[in-house]
Amino acid sequence: MDGMTVFLANSDQHVNIGKEKHSRNVSVYVKNPHLDLMEEDILYHLDLGTKTHNLPAMFGDIKFVCVGGSPNRMKAFAHFMQKELGHKGEDNDLKDICAGTDRYSMYKVGPVLSISHGMGIPSISIVLHELIKLLHHAKCCDVTIIRIGTSGGLGVEPGSVVITDVAVDSFFKPQFEQVILDRVVTRNTELDQDLASELLECSRGIKDFPTLMGHTMCTYDFYEGQGRLDGALCCFSNEKKLEYLKRAYNAGVRNIEMESTVFAAMCRLCGLKAAVVCVTLLNRFEGDQIKASHEVLAEYQRRPQQLIATLIKKRLGLINDTELLDNAVV
Amino acid sequence: MDGMTVFLANSDQHVNIGKEKHSRNVSVYVKNPHLDLMEEDILYHLDLGTKTHNLPAMFGDIKFVCVGGSPNRMKAFAHFMQKELGHKGEDNDLKDICAGTDRYSMYKVGPVLSISHGMGIPSISIVLHELIKLLHHAKCCDVTIIRIGTSGGLGVEPGSVVITDVAVDSFFKPQFEQVILDRVVTRNTELDQDLASELLECSRGIKDFPTLMGHTMCTYDFYEGQGRLDGALCCFSNEKKLEYLKRAYNAGVRNIEMESTVFAAMCRLCGLKAAVVCVTLLNRFEGDQIKASHEVLAEYQRRPQQLIATLIKKRLGLINDTELLDNAVV
Repeated sequence: MDGMTVFLANSDQHVNIGKEKHSRNVSVYVKNPHLDLMEEDILYHLDLGTKTHNLPAMFGDIKFVCVGGSPNRMKAFAHFMQKELGHKGEDNDLKDICAGTDRYSMYKVGPVLSISHGMGIPSISIVLHELIKLLHHAKCCDVTIIRIGTSGGLGVEPGSVVITDVAVDSFFKPQFEQVILDRVVTRNTELDQDLASELLECSRGIKDFPTLMGHTMCTYDFYEGQGRLDGALCCFSNEKKLEYLKRAYNAGVRNIEMESTVFAAMCRLCGLKAAVVCVTLLNRFEGDQIKASHEVLAEYQRRPQQLIATLIKKRLGLINDTELLDNAVV
Repeated sequence: MDGMTVFLANSDQHVNIGKEKHSRNVSVYVKNPHLDLMEEDILYHLDLGTKTHNLPAMFGDIKFVCVGGSPNRMKAFAHFMQKELGHKGEDNDLKDICAGTDRYSMYKVGPVLSISHGMGIPSISIVLHELIKLLHHAKCCDVTIIRIGTSGGLGVEPGSVVITDVAVDSFFKPQFEQVILDRVVTRNTELDQDLASELLECSRGIKDFPTLMGHTMCTYDFYEGQGRLDGALCCFSNEKKLEYLKRAYNAGVRNIEMESTVFAAMCRLCGLKAAVVCVTLLNRFEGDQIKASHEVLAEYQRRPQQLIATLIKKRLGLINDTELLDNAVV
């Protein structure tokens, strides 16, 4: 373990001491004193492990981790990054690093890791636990993690890209309730403000679609929890639905999805600079069903990828600030 | 809509009146008065719809729906059912009915539908909303639904198959808390007792592995919420973990997974006779990591499938009670 973690019994708080104070690199921290005592760590849902794989050799150079729900979309993002980073010749056929399991898919393009996380808080939480351990075992440092997602919009044009400033729960609170054994612990869901501002800055060079910053509401389901009238179960009226969505809007919520609170909370606890960038597939004030054509939805889903690619290329020095403002990246 | 649903405003309760009183068939009920007013229903995450697909023709004969987390496992189950039901000649190459999306996979073998649901309560709740609407639109009746899953065992030999009598939450309560708009509604998670007993009866003819009935605990994550010491985050001791797991065992819990409470609650509300049958991959009193070999785990995962196949064949009259008791089904 690069930085020592001091374990406070019966508390969700940990204090980091050690190397990072004396180094410019900021490591990814696990907050678990038990891990050091384990001879082997099997990352079961990724089909990777510390004894079966040389994790530092495989992943030590990772600087950007991008996660999203759909395996196909995360494969498409990896292909897109190959083109954007000029890696096309090196590794034309992208291999799913987690091919031994169908739980998640993972692709690596130079310093960029692209991973699917399925749908909902529990599904993304499993992959985050194992990913954070992976980055720790691989001794990665200065890692930025971005969730690239789809969402329902609130009062914004369909196809808009929302950069999350803070993830809120169904009650519009910036917190995530984690059950630990049978105790409920409340965790902070603020995201990295500098990273969010940098992404907004990057978006100014992209004229093809609107990008904005706002709160993102994270729910435990797609139908009743998001006020949809079109589920198998629904016991409220259209008026009650609109009243709820208006309250959300007035609280600053601009889009709704199903993973951001736990993503923000876990990354924050583990020292990963994190952002959530989601495209909106519809305006929930206008309906519940996703009716846009396959082609339109596919184009929408490429929008956050374009923004993330711009950020990554800027960070890697492949484009400079002038180019960023002058040119739309297509 | 086959049976009329009377809508009680501001309440989670619904009263069914109509056809089913006069018929021997029991329909699958949606509990949503808004659905009747919709011209079209797009089942977005299944890539199916009422205008684009003839759902009664495609699914009207469905009597058994089997759901499980992994797409590969649910495909393997469909293949297994082809063999068991002698459908091998008819449709050798199983087609994924949801091939247009990578969110879920779906296969049909005669009256059996096999669907993946991903991991966790939110992921299974999305597919259940759309599946229940699908069964409703297809005018299916007398449908039995079974979740075939993997789980962590409590005080039972790894590889044991647990038939759930009741799904409980992290506090050992037989309930599921559903957030609707920003109100929390508590739902009952009892499963169909006759179906559970019938499954236990079927298991008596299978000598290859132990089967038992018990409570199943459903959590929102795999690590902290299940008392694992090997996640990226852990703030409790081995003693606290064991104390919690012992309390769960004493409350009647024999296995832990991540979908059963919402599955039980939604199926119950919609008139679907439901069961949960999970194999245990390890004994959580002995550890947290899943260390068994790929081959052993693959064999474990076939066990609940064997039991479900026995039930389906018995129901379809392909085996009788004497054969059931005399022979192990392999």
